[in-house]
Amino acid sequence: MNSSHAHHPDRLLPADPGVREIARRLLNHVEELPIISPHGHLDAQMFVDDAAFPDPTALIISPDHYLCRVLHSAGVPLDKLRVGGTEGASPREAWRIFASHWDLFTGTASGYWLEQEFAHVFGIDPDRLGADEADAIYDELSATLAQPDFRPRALADSFGLEVLATTDDPLDDLAAHRTLAEDPTFSPRVLPTFRPDAYTKMYNEGFAENVTRLIDTAGDGKTGFAGYLEAMRNRREYFKANGAVSSDHGTHDSWVHPIDDAEAERILQKGLRGEATRAEAAAFEGNMTYRFAEMARDDGLVMTIHPGVWRNTSASALEKYGPDTGHDIPFRMDFIDGLQPLLSDFCENPDFHLVLFTIDESTYSRELAPIAGYYPSCYVGAPWWFIDEIDAMNRFRSATTGTTGFSRYSGFIDDTRAYCSIPARHNTSRRVEAGYLARLVAEHRITEDRAAEIIVDLIDASPRRVFKL
Amino acid sequence: MNSSHAHHPDRLLPADPGVREIARRLLNHVEELPIISPHGHLDAQMFVDDAAFPDPTALIISPDHYLCRVLHSAGVPLDKLRVGGTEGASPREAWRIFASHWDLFTGTASGYWLEQEFAHVFGIDPDRLGADEADAIYDELSATLAQPDFRPRALADSFGLEVLATTDDPLDDLAAHRTLAEDPTFSPRVLPTFRPDAYTKMYNEGFAENVTRLIDTAGDGKTGFAGYLEAMRNRREYFKANGAVSSDHGTHDSWVHPIDDAEAERILQKGLRGEATRAEAAAFEGNMTYRFAEMARDDGLVMTIHPGVWRNTSASALEKYGPDTGHDIPFRMDFIDGLQPLLSDFCENPDFHLVLFTIDESTYSRELAPIAGYYPSCYVGAPWWFIDEIDAMNRFRSATTGTTGFSRYSGFIDDTRAYCSIPARHNTSRRVEAGYLARLVAEHRITEDRAAEIIVDLIDASPRRVFKL
Amino acid sequence: MNSSHAHHPDRLLPADPGVREIARRLLNHVEELPIISPHGHLDAQMFVDDAAFPDPTALIISPDHYLCRVLHSAGVPLDKLRVGGTEGASPREAWRIFASHWDLFTGTASGYWLEQEFAHVFGIDPDRLGADEADAIYDELSATLAQPDFRPRALADSFGLEVLATTDDPLDDLAAHRTLAEDPTFSPRVLPTFRPDAYTKMYNEGFAENVTRLIDTAGDGKTGFAGYLEAMRNRREYFKANGAVSSDHGTHDSWVHPIDDAEAERILQKGLRGEATRAEAAAFEGNMTYRFAEMARDDGLVMTIHPGVWRNTSASALEKYGPDTGHDIPFRMDFIDGLQPLLSDFCENPDFHLVLFTIDESTYSRELAPIAGYYPSCYVGAPWWFIDEIDAMNRFRSATTGTTGFSRYSGFIDDTRAYCSIPARHNTSRRVEAGYLARLVAEHRITEDRAAEIIVDLIDASPRRVFKL
Repeated sequence: MNSSHAHHPDRLLPADPGVREIARRLLNHVEELPIISPHGHLDAQMFVDDAAFPDPTALIISPDHYLCRVLHSAGVPLDKLRVGGTEGASPREAWRIFASHWDLFTGTASGYWLEQEFAHVFGIDPDRLGADEADAIYDELSATLAQPDFRPRALADSFGLEVLATTDDPLDDLAAHRTLAEDPTFSPRVLPTFRPDAYTKMYNEGFAENVTRLIDTAGDGKTGFAGYLEAMRNRREYFKANGAVSSDHGTHDSWVHPIDDAEAERILQKGLRGEATRAEAAAFEGNMTYRFAEMARDDGLVMTIHPGVWRNTSASALEKYGPDTGHDIPFRMDFIDGLQPLLSDFCENPDFHLVLFTIDESTYSRELAPIAGYYPSCYVGAPWWFIDEIDAMNRFRSATTGTTGFSRYSGFIDDTRAYCSIPARHNTSRRVEAGYLARLVAEHRITEDRAAEIIVDLIDASPRRVFKL
Repeated sequence: MNSSHAHHPDRLLPADPGVREIARRLLNHVEELPIISPHGHLDAQMFVDDAAFPDPTALIISPDHYLCRVLHSAGVPLDKLRVGGTEGASPREAWRIFASHWDLFTGTASGYWLEQEFAHVFGIDPDRLGADEADAIYDELSATLAQPDFRPRALADSFGLEVLATTDDPLDDLAAHRTLAEDPTFSPRVLPTFRPDAYTKMYNEGFAENVTRLIDTAGDGKTGFAGYLEAMRNRREYFKANGAVSSDHGTHDSWVHPIDDAEAERILQKGLRGEATRAEAAAFEGNMTYRFAEMARDDGLVMTIHPGVWRNTSASALEKYGPDTGHDIPFRMDFIDGLQPLLSDFCENPDFHLVLFTIDESTYSRELAPIAGYYPSCYVGAPWWFIDEIDAMNRFRSATTGTTGFSRYSGFIDDTRAYCSIPARHNTSRRVEAGYLARLVAEHRITEDRAAEIIVDLIDASPRRVFKL
Repeated sequence: MNSSHAHHPDRLLPADPGVREIARRLLNHVEELPIISPHGHLDAQMFVDDAAFPDPTALIISPDHYLCRVLHSAGVPLDKLRVGGTEGASPREAWRIFASHWDLFTGTASGYWLEQEFAHVFGIDPDRLGADEADAIYDELSATLAQPDFRPRALADSFGLEVLATTDDPLDDLAAHRTLAEDPTFSPRVLPTFRPDAYTKMYNEGFAENVTRLIDTAGDGKTGFAGYLEAMRNRREYFKANGAVSSDHGTHDSWVHPIDDAEAERILQKGLRGEATRAEAAAFEGNMTYRFAEMARDDGLVMTIHPGVWRNTSASALEKYGPDTGHDIPFRMDFIDGLQPLLSDFCENPDFHLVLFTIDESTYSRELAPIAGYYPSCYVGAPWWFIDEIDAMNRFRSATTGTTGFSRYSGFIDDTRAYCSIPARHNTSRRVEAGYLARLVAEHRITEDRAAEIIVDLIDASPRRVFKL
């Protein structure tokens, strides 16, 4: 059986006693700071409704593709976890499956988050996890979730949530965000993020319907590519007016090259008819990333790019459970090859902010640090997805700091659909930063005073600065 | 002069005293476990003959391309090491050359293995290695090798060898394996592995002859591609009947895409005439990997893939010494791009086992851990070849564990042609696992009790589970 | 404010007390050894003139693209730093800008070098750096630079400079080098390096003029490609006669494939007319690298290759400030794919020396260590440019040593335009080597005696051996 360190004050800190002592002191400077989450995937409506979460499985298991993929790798069919609205098992049965596979999570990022979440959010000793107490814990959690203190707003308070960005469709009316902004009893800033992917990827289902609706709704009567661009500009303004500070782009790769409007028009029309070639679709997407940079230069929204993931690699899982269900696999990135026009044309401008994320660690020292270490627009995004993990975060710091120092970092990004994991994720990041900086102090590379300044800057000032909060 | 730590009980364990103490305890749980070697390159006939090894050079130097390549980099011609059957020096002279270059091995994986091998298998103090005692050691080793305790079977006993897989041509009659299986006096399981590379790579010499023989021998009278597939299926059954648990595929790259049988037939015929283009040869190979996955789904053999090595980069060395003589160089891998059809079509099935090896470490966190962390068929192979090395093994754990935990690992693979290095290789791996887990314990990430369970699982249960032993 | 460890005797050494103690002892063996710098970008004329440096900005800031890029990333226009001959600010104002951004350098390679440089070369406490004392320090430095002890030759003595290579145009008359060689009062060897890039890259401005001048000047009356090759051979001989030991090739990528002379002639003529396609330009460059290897085989110059950097990614910065101003970005390398003909045709020869540099760390364990661990011609270059940094140097050792041991290393390369950073860069490298070796000793992998031999070999013998000094 696993046994948890979730309550150990030195958990996740470096093993060396001297380094750990420094890390502990550095952590003190930031452990209780409010949580700033400038990119993630929660639903703003959750805070408007402020309803009790239905059951432990719906809160903790089914929406978290990190968890589901680990269980799936052990042969658990995703419908047994109620993924994508399926109901192959009852919530309680799904919970039992999760609990009986608890050992699989040892050493994983998800395992660390879950332990913290159980211990600190729900007051459940992670040592109890496993098949034996599955039902007991399910019942306790169910009772807990029924209490007013465990509704979304109350949790936001206890989490210390100051800023939370959601990720939204350009045509979203943002009513929930407006309601929250106007509610004097709700203090966190819940900000929408403009994410136009469903309108730029011709190779995805629904493209034609989406684009037609976009142009019809927001194109100011213009048609074709002109209407498309106009609609994008209009919706960005609408997002800004409703609190958005950034747009996010889950581009297939890092290809960003402008094409002229006539060519874009031609490809768009083919795309609307479902006739675009793969090369045309890529050219359209690469052009749009460039056009979004133009818009960002003009409207000031921060631009974040999350490229390099082959989505939905499993045909059968896509069909049964839909997208975002764990079978996305990253691929190799070549940043400079694709990004050069964007860098050259926009990134000498300190007011334009571009945050580059990657799952390909080989690009950190080779491309992203050199890019962010020169271009005043560019920031290196926190380790993303599969590399949002203790050792990987250390490798990130090690690979970028020599070139960029500490000033070109996005701040920590939790990027999560798992609401109750947010404190654990941010706390993990703070511990890793403390440990990394403590090593530099112990190696007589920087002083502890300077490290204390830096850790506060990394945790608190960086996300505010980079995301214009 | 070098001086050896081969006898130090803490050798290869982490430097931090606290971590080391934990590592030592963890190591105790596994250091004496039997050796399971599910993939390697020894000759089963060696155990049938059970003859004394001819001389130290023939046993230790000439067949080990790890050693020979280090010596070659210092300007030693390979024939002086009696590589590939050459006789540019006597065995004793070759030994002297090796001994006089002993310093080159400091810090290399081979150096660590050799020290252990000399100290623990042959009782020779590695401190004595070097030019001065070259002859004395040669004589001592020669005397040792003449003793009955140093014949292959006796060594297998003293090594604690429980399972040893060989790598075999599909048309091999497996007589040696059968003899061993039927011999009640010989306890290790020596299992054949079906390796059809010589029949799938049109660009290699002998392809047409090999394939013609295969179809004629095992095609059940069918001809062309149908006969080719039938022969493959038949020989796999024959291998299974003789103890095989896996097939191994040294594919050029990770391209696995099905083509229809008519196209395969067309390319096969061109290949048999020596007229296939490079693209056709690649398409044929990529199709066959897909077809072998189909066969594996049906017959249950574990599928292992070792891609991404440019074989025989030195034209002159290939001509003089033949293949596998040290001048193979790895190249960049893009797993998901090539593997997606195989993943999507076969890898949702927990009964189909696919082990993916790589020498391109950048793929660990980017592709292999995400793949093995979702697809129930997929396992990440132990660090292979140039990265079967202490620091690299630690990087492997660090890069994969956050995503996969400890359950998606192949178990250690020695993959060797150097029989007497087997205990040292497995011991090295056990020490590295102990050190890695000890760090996690010391960082309050996992408990020592859980680490003790995990290390036993990694060393003993993983290879049995993954290779269906 | 930052505070400096520049005087701490344990600076940059590992944190673990036991490892540090060993590292300190190992460092003692090499800390005071003379500086051998076989590749860099200083101007030999500096030592001929031996004039006082004009001002602190001209010495320390403007020519150092490492520094300028960090400041530029914070939004400082490069002309404010007087980059590329611009004068957007006075030297004193530029200095104030630098000083007021001092915090940006914490944790960067440049930050460590600068601290050492201020403390050890100029006797200025780095704790004083920052806006407040900017003017005072500027004045002190100005006064210091006026003293005879701070002229180039006196500094060379105090730095312990024994060998310094410059990087020179093939048509350079090398008068400065000759003057220095003939001057009995000047002891360092200042060696030219043959760098023909301006004559091989058709896609760069000035190609036709450069090549025409080369052929006319040095082609012995031959014309076209024959004259071009003849001129290259002649100038290499001229360089050799003036002390050169190596040629350096800043190739775009690692593509090295011979084409026949008629095809080279055809492409050359198109290139001279400005009509070569991108593919033709690449083929010409790849052929020339092959031809330079032929020449090196014959004339014995060491060949160094620095590939994989996309030069001048910012169009506006290139126009305003020229090349080498901080906006070069590395890209992904595939060594074996491009280099195979060169390896196969030349690199079995121990007398031909080829040093391969990279900024793509993923190639270390995958390609460069396997190449240098077999081919007697090949050496792995020290971590270059963005990865000439403490943690990255450790990763370099960790990624290569298991395959190559310590014998296939180029020796440390400072590659700098910043004269006064040379001692700090070499000292940093020595500390990293001491720390790395100390870890191996502490992990009972090598003995301290052997580590002491190795560190002296790495620092002193390696560059002499590899660069034939």
